[in-house]
Amino acid sequence: MITLYWHPKTRAVRTHWLLEELGEDYTLETVDLTDPGSRADPGFRAASPMGKVPAISDGETAVADSAAIAIYLADRYPEAGLAPAVDDPDRGRYLFWSVYTPGVVEPAMMERFNQWEVNPGSSGWGNFDRMIETLERGLDTGPWILGDRFSAADTLLGSSVYFMQVFGVLPASTPLEGYLERCLARPAYAAAIAASQGEP
Amino acid sequence: MITLYWHPKTRAVRTHWLLEELGEDYTLETVDLTDPGSRADPGFRAASPMGKVPAISDGETAVADSAAIAIYLADRYPEAGLAPAVDDPDRGRYLFWSVYTPGVVEPAMMERFNQWEVNPGSSGWGNFDRMIETLERGLDTGPWILGDRFSAADTLLGSSVYFMQVFGVLPASTPLEGYLERCLARPAYAAAIAASQGEP
Repeated sequence: MITLYWHPKTRAVRTHWLLEELGEDYTLETVDLTDPGSRADPGFRAASPMGKVPAISDGETAVADSAAIAIYLADRYPEAGLAPAVDDPDRGRYLFWSVYTPGVVEPAMMERFNQWEVNPGSSGWGNFDRMIETLERGLDTGPWILGDRFSAADTLLGSSVYFMQVFGVLPASTPLEGYLERCLARPAYAAAIAASQGEP
Repeated sequence: MITLYWHPKTRAVRTHWLLEELGEDYTLETVDLTDPGSRADPGFRAASPMGKVPAISDGETAVADSAAIAIYLADRYPEAGLAPAVDDPDRGRYLFWSVYTPGVVEPAMMERFNQWEVNPGSSGWGNFDRMIETLERGLDTGPWILGDRFSAADTLLGSSVYFMQVFGVLPASTPLEGYLERCLARPAYAAAIAASQGEP
């Protein structure tokens, strides 16, 4: 049984969406990061070295970071068809786009929120504008980041676009707005968002 | 045959190290990011959506981002023993630490270089000090991030510690200095660093 360490209105909504797509049994365990007792839960501490949600446990395996969790779950439960196999030519693009959310989108959003000046040549994430342009180009063929094939990478990228919209930093972008609409039309994402907007 | 799109004195040294550990045939292709002709190389453009090194091609597969490349290569060539299998209990920790370099170390280094003020609760990477503490705790058992087992994640983390030292932001840390020393003692890393310090 998979346990998702979760809290409303956090990045854990991404993993919740993925679990809904995956079709395996899971439970949500609410971790209140403002409550030392809740943060001290041994399962949570073992799963999340930085003390952040989302994190999961799955039998003897524990994983934190939404991208690491997505890569883990989609490979561990291949019958859901959410990841190209290791010898599939799409595997490289799939992994690039899976790492794009923590490595590129997240720091670029912080850059924009804080109006930091970033040199795109030295920064690992380029800068906010390059992040947007690269993602738009990635969606040129669509409807999903791997083309016709929906994958776990879309739960990371789609939720990233959603957060950009919610936090008011999503630029006017027909490709990204269309992509977000397609993501939100998936019942699995709608269910995860509804849970995230409710009370813990 | 694996092609590594590479340039001296860049993050591509990480992937070079990994390729030396992997034991598969590869070639280095130098990409001069200041030269539009070199950047326009079709193989490089197909491999690297952000136009950054490192990127690789491997038959029909192309991958960019050092963490995505590491996850790809270690799974694709399992005989090198550089990644826990998908059903191995260490798989979760392995993926968490593989994503740690782009998602946590890289933005935290930018934070420190630029003396940005970061709220660790809202930032995906916590902040620089939490990044260091978490990595130190992760190395408590050592000698490698998965304990006795050297993995592709060490090429990411070890090169991250090296870059922190080179750029003068590595705090005094017995665990991280010891880890760096163990990494530098590996012939594969020494060879990659020697190449990176030479001329293209």
